[in-house]
Amino acid sequence: MEVTRLIRFEDAEGVARLGLWEPDPRRESLGTARLIEGDLFGRWRPTDAVVRVRRLRAPVDPPNIYGIGLNYREHAAEGKRDVPDKPLIFIKATTSVIDPGAPIELPKSAPNKVDFEAELAVVIGRRARDVPESRVAEYLLGYTCANDVTARDCQKELDGQWARAKSFDTFCPLGPCIVPVGQLDPNDLAVRSRLNGQVMQDACTADMIFSAAYLVSYLSSQFTLLPGTVICTGTPAGVGFARNPRVFLRAGDVISVEVGGIGMLTNPVRGPVC
Amino acid sequence: MEVTRLIRFEDAEGVARLGLWEPDPRRESLGTARLIEGDLFGRWRPTDAVVRVRRLRAPVDPPNIYGIGLNYREHAAEGKRDVPDKPLIFIKATTSVIDPGAPIELPKSAPNKVDFEAELAVVIGRRARDVPESRVAEYLLGYTCANDVTARDCQKELDGQWARAKSFDTFCPLGPCIVPVGQLDPNDLAVRSRLNGQVMQDACTADMIFSAAYLVSYLSSQFTLLPGTVICTGTPAGVGFARNPRVFLRAGDVISVEVGGIGMLTNPVRGPVC
Repeated sequence: MEVTRLIRFEDAEGVARLGLWEPDPRRESLGTARLIEGDLFGRWRPTDAVVRVRRLRAPVDPPNIYGIGLNYREHAAEGKRDVPDKPLIFIKATTSVIDPGAPIELPKSAPNKVDFEAELAVVIGRRARDVPESRVAEYLLGYTCANDVTARDCQKELDGQWARAKSFDTFCPLGPCIVPVGQLDPNDLAVRSRLNGQVMQDACTADMIFSAAYLVSYLSSQFTLLPGTVICTGTPAGVGFARNPRVFLRAGDVISVEVGGIGMLTNPVRGPVC
Repeated sequence: MEVTRLIRFEDAEGVARLGLWEPDPRRESLGTARLIEGDLFGRWRPTDAVVRVRRLRAPVDPPNIYGIGLNYREHAAEGKRDVPDKPLIFIKATTSVIDPGAPIELPKSAPNKVDFEAELAVVIGRRARDVPESRVAEYLLGYTCANDVTARDCQKELDGQWARAKSFDTFCPLGPCIVPVGQLDPNDLAVRSRLNGQVMQDACTADMIFSAAYLVSYLSSQFTLLPGTVICTGTPAGVGFARNPRVFLRAGDVISVEVGGIGMLTNPVRGPVC
């Protein structure tokens, strides 16, 4: 079954639009989109108008971005960490979000150990508080891809708080699209990263310790989740710092995150501006 | 010199307004406010209209809330922590903000070790990136009071990430007002908390390890700070977990944070709703 791909994009005139994406099968352009009327977090419906997609935007402006640490056994093991007995929550600053294709900038203050983390991301559709796992689907807009970019040197400093390491500007590429809830099984999706075309991470969301639905239910039992909230569900093994030899992002690299059924989120890497 | 007090409030009809606050000197009511025309993050000017204040609101809806850990020597010592050599940054979820007077709710999942932290908070006025310390004032809206409420039991779990412990709904009371930059010396303000009227913390911002201006400059060298961003500058000694015997917030308590020259931020405490 072909899935629906919700996008935020710029049309040929640079106007911001919402649409249902029809990617170019030959990948020679970004394809076209059927325009949407309404609000992704309210009622929306497709119109008859189809326009060219000039530029993709991150699919939402999240009010909060939650990340989950160590949610794949092999990734916990490669970092020599124990598997947590409940979700390990951290927060990324909302200013870290960038569009598909936009450059990840190596930060001036920590340019040398910037790592990639391919992840399935969940997008909340309506205000969620104390939602049981069985009813999570009612509160979701859908699924997208995230790259939970992390400066490894900062992650270990200063009481080990991860906020700074994961919140530099450009450290949260999101997209290319949202596949609405109900069209994919979030527990059986391939998650891959490729660095300059070479596969670095290759796993399946079936290997998550805490499933996407469990994470949403758990987070909603702790905090109110507002519409547009993004939950990055954790990264599988294969990240740069745990490889031998270690691999970190360098200016000129191209890093992509692919989640099966959703698409590919590709971003170039740019060196620090001094 | 009398300072200007910017507030967001509800008038007698429950309409949300911006104004310059004139508190009732007898404290029998919330006083009055001269209405403001415009936008706090753009141009604004006082009008001739003065109305009653029925209810104070948190003075901003922050796009991100940064906290700073261990920024007073005695507080670092009472927690048996080293003084950090650069600011220890954490993030609070934006959904944790509550209004002056609104109840702090003990979370169902962690009701027993909820602690108070009185803090001077800085509010960013315009987009700030790489701002030198000498020019920070140009980027600030002003100063307010924050209570960086923290569930101590959660703070130590799971790799010690503080995000969950500090992000429960209602864990970031803000207010009562913003005193615009230039009207106070942020390096010489009393910071106090009172639990049911009894003074628990009593210090001066002169004792901060990293000054408010340094923190804004440093944070702006790491992340883009959007208008409305709140930076909680750290809490002095006297918090509940470090006292002997320990003191935690209980249903029925009233906790207030006072920053000299700004005002008093008072919130009742409510037990978990089961």
